[in-house]
Amino acid sequence: MNHQQEGDKQVKLFGFWPSPYVLKVIWALRIKGVEYDYIEEDLSNKSDQLLEYNPVHKKVPVLVYQGKPIAESEVIIQFIDEAWKDRGDPILPEDPYERAMARFWIRFLQDKLSPPIWKWFTTQGQQQEDAHGAAIDQLLVLEKELDGKRFFAGEKIGFVDLSLGPLSYVIPIYEEITGVKMITEEKLPSLSAWMGNFLSSPVVKDHLPPLDKLRLRLQAIREAFLNGKVK
Amino acid sequence: MNHQQEGDKQVKLFGFWPSPYVLKVIWALRIKGVEYDYIEEDLSNKSDQLLEYNPVHKKVPVLVYQGKPIAESEVIIQFIDEAWKDRGDPILPEDPYERAMARFWIRFLQDKLSPPIWKWFTTQGQQQEDAHGAAIDQLLVLEKELDGKRFFAGEKIGFVDLSLGPLSYVIPIYEEITGVKMITEEKLPSLSAWMGNFLSSPVVKDHLPPLDKLRLRLQAIREAFLNGKVK
Repeated sequence: MNHQQEGDKQVKLFGFWPSPYVLKVIWALRIKGVEYDYIEEDLSNKSDQLLEYNPVHKKVPVLVYQGKPIAESEVIIQFIDEAWKDRGDPILPEDPYERAMARFWIRFLQDKLSPPIWKWFTTQGQQQEDAHGAAIDQLLVLEKELDGKRFFAGEKIGFVDLSLGPLSYVIPIYEEITGVKMITEEKLPSLSAWMGNFLSSPVVKDHLPPLDKLRLRLQAIREAFLNGKVK
Repeated sequence: MNHQQEGDKQVKLFGFWPSPYVLKVIWALRIKGVEYDYIEEDLSNKSDQLLEYNPVHKKVPVLVYQGKPIAESEVIIQFIDEAWKDRGDPILPEDPYERAMARFWIRFLQDKLSPPIWKWFTTQGQQQEDAHGAAIDQLLVLEKELDGKRFFAGEKIGFVDLSLGPLSYVIPIYEEITGVKMITEEKLPSLSAWMGNFLSSPVVKDHLPPLDKLRLRLQAIREAFLNGKVK
């Protein structure tokens, strides 16, 4: 594999602007200083290239490296960390036990945290209240893990930070649309501070989706769920 | 970290005999030649130690290394590969792209293949038929990926083989109990051969659960689903 700077031109990323999964990959590429060509996909009319590169899931993000495609954001981020090992900051720690812990928390975010947060945002009444409580329970587990640190990885952004990252701008939008608070300084002080640390970090701050446009989109998604138009 | 042989005594595995997730970890430890103490858990009456070591999921397997716990089978297997990097055969390949592909297929097994197989085994009538068709569709994707190779990793068992491994003895039991064939030589020749290759490999052949006892347990599980006692 060619890890030279000139090899970067062989990196392509297929994305979709509101996708948090795509954004995580962009942040990871920025940590490593990898240049790439970005191709915006129209998910209602997917390109032949996307279907060819990701026939199993037909989804973004897809990273193409020297003509070879990789799908699934967490798989891509680990690839970026390993392929450009000697450039930029490490995304995963070096120690095997600490690497295992990072991977453990990635699974936690996927399996335990994301479902109740999404349910909270797409329901109302008792269902919404129950999902809110379930999400808080999981956030308290994360709060304990973060325990006053600047980032989950320590002083710099790492794998768990990247994966949790989209919540830093999405939770405030969810809170605004639903009129219900989720992450407060009183209840979740470490996570509350983490949101600010993450949003103001150099890799992230100029690479966020247009938040007004995202708010309108999320508002429409919530309405479609409440009207029973999607499930 | 101490990677010496004498360090092995500090490895404990909390398991439960019918768990395919525990078995994957045992096979991985055998590939690396790591000695460990095995603690059988009674999942209807979990030990205080298990609850202390895995408070988030309260599940087996848990691997304890030098007093520090790791949960989630795929996380544990990657840890074993990294912590005992220089012993036994590698479980993940060295090349970053090939590592990404192995991780991609692990997600595929979890997200795409396991759900329809489990649904096929726990339903009847049209639901069972639909799940059977959906599982075959996903198995055909794997068949194409395997494409006549001895193992997914090549000549020796690797990460994807370990993760798919339990299907090698479970699918025949499911087929016998339901009276419906799933993996046939005609339709899935590579996978069919893979099952035999896997079951006869040195790491696996003497480390399978007691199949008669497992068959009775699975029969009871299917009946509980069909009677609506579990969902």
